[in-house]
Amino acid sequence: MQQIGFIGLGTMGGPMATNLLRKGYEVEVYNRSRAKAEALVSLGAKVADTPAQLAETASILFTMLGDDASVESIYYGTDGLIAGAQAGAMMIDCSTISPALSRRLAHDLAQQQVSFLDAPVTGSKPAAINGTLLFMVGGEAETLSAARDVFLAMGREIVHMGPSGMGSQTKLAHNAMVGIHAAALAEGLSLALKAGLDPAKFLSVVQSGGAASKQVELKRDKLLQRDFSNQFSLKLMLKDLRLASEMAAHHQVPTPMLAETQTLFQMGQTQGWGELDLCSIVQLYEQWTGVKVGNQ
Amino acid sequence: MQQIGFIGLGTMGGPMATNLLRKGYEVEVYNRSRAKAEALVSLGAKVADTPAQLAETASILFTMLGDDASVESIYYGTDGLIAGAQAGAMMIDCSTISPALSRRLAHDLAQQQVSFLDAPVTGSKPAAINGTLLFMVGGEAETLSAARDVFLAMGREIVHMGPSGMGSQTKLAHNAMVGIHAAALAEGLSLALKAGLDPAKFLSVVQSGGAASKQVELKRDKLLQRDFSNQFSLKLMLKDLRLASEMAAHHQVPTPMLAETQTLFQMGQTQGWGELDLCSIVQLYEQWTGVKVGNQ
Repeated sequence: MQQIGFIGLGTMGGPMATNLLRKGYEVEVYNRSRAKAEALVSLGAKVADTPAQLAETASILFTMLGDDASVESIYYGTDGLIAGAQAGAMMIDCSTISPALSRRLAHDLAQQQVSFLDAPVTGSKPAAINGTLLFMVGGEAETLSAARDVFLAMGREIVHMGPSGMGSQTKLAHNAMVGIHAAALAEGLSLALKAGLDPAKFLSVVQSGGAASKQVELKRDKLLQRDFSNQFSLKLMLKDLRLASEMAAHHQVPTPMLAETQTLFQMGQTQGWGELDLCSIVQLYEQWTGVKVGNQ
Repeated sequence: MQQIGFIGLGTMGGPMATNLLRKGYEVEVYNRSRAKAEALVSLGAKVADTPAQLAETASILFTMLGDDASVESIYYGTDGLIAGAQAGAMMIDCSTISPALSRRLAHDLAQQQVSFLDAPVTGSKPAAINGTLLFMVGGEAETLSAARDVFLAMGREIVHMGPSGMGSQTKLAHNAMVGIHAAALAEGLSLALKAGLDPAKFLSVVQSGGAASKQVELKRDKLLQRDFSNQFSLKLMLKDLRLASEMAAHHQVPTPMLAETQTLFQMGQTQGWGELDLCSIVQLYEQWTGVKVGNQ
């Protein structure tokens, strides 16, 4: 049995590592706050003291981290993954980061005969728990083939998008659309509410009609109950929108919808809602209209 | 059997009247360009010379027209519906128009003991053909009950949104979201394309992931084939976005996403794409990036 390493046991990484353990894989874990790692010991996980220590034993190693800075620190830092990398191993980053960093990791790890995939996911916390994530993968096809079974222990679908960085680029263009849809939902619902429409009936029509979206499906009940508990945080969505805007600037693509959406999420972050679910963006409109769901 | 009247036999109204005839209803029709009315004679339709003539015999009368001006002309014009209205009849407008006009029609027809519903639909040409439209209805509940069977000959779902004008308001808030999603699709796809991603693979990930939408489902193949033949015209979407903006202004709701979307559709209209499908908005991005689907 392959030894799997897993670094980053947050909202997404925790359930992903749990699914690997439940499917019977030997998993060694590392997390900056060690308590989240210790929590998996009862499921059979071993706990490493440093990323480097983990890299010395794992044949396939996953990272699921919050941003470019965290990924750089885990890979390039003292006692980081590159310090412990073993020739012939495979490292797979599922974080949503800049395509440039994905490509740099692939290049630098290749120097140590370590193969690398950028493999960000779609599906938020419920999909991570249910093992129904979709992986969009950049890197060599043979590397992907070798890791296929392990991916399928955590997800339902794997799509090979091209060489290194293409997984990250897919994720950013995808999440730009998610953010725009989340803003559309907040704005449409708020307009309907202010017009005196019943919000539940309105969202039923939306979901049954041409305005249906996965965001409406995922956030409908949360919005109607004003439940802003985190499934996918506003803060991380803002980060993804910034990365998508940088990607668009790099490719010289004008993205007016993304720009407007990023402004709204920045407003939400500035209001202090960063740790809430991204659907909490509706509170901007509540401030602007004076009408809250449930207050009609 | 009730005598049904139907006015406005365009992209949506033509298939709707056809479904009524196929379900066995007696239908008399009127259309400004008479050829579209004559085309239904072989299915059993009678053809009226004026709206007023039609109003003299129909117990339930539908209008499905393009904009406020057309609706005003058909109802208030010489030989219009109000001129021929019979006490006890019912008139149902399925056009997407301003809520203020819906309310005015309900008020003025009530003076003649004619009941009125604003009942715009979601579902574009294919749903009109398949009889799977959703009607969002404003007006009296009893009026709606009396028309339920006739609605179900053309659609799959009827939602009573409240008093007169609420159907139109629902439709405008809904279509604002449709427009935003259409712009999100054009922008996300164009960013992915310019980044070198395979457009079909990208849209598969989108539709399988958190960025899924009815717009992606409806327009995916059309975009990949650059088939801009009309299912729901850019011109009519621009009209709906303008009406939604007026509604938002009336209720004093800031709608930055709608405003940006309206700008994009106005650009498309100015380019001369008004009669094309709304997904032709992607051509703006093609101009900006120099990359077309199918040209990679």
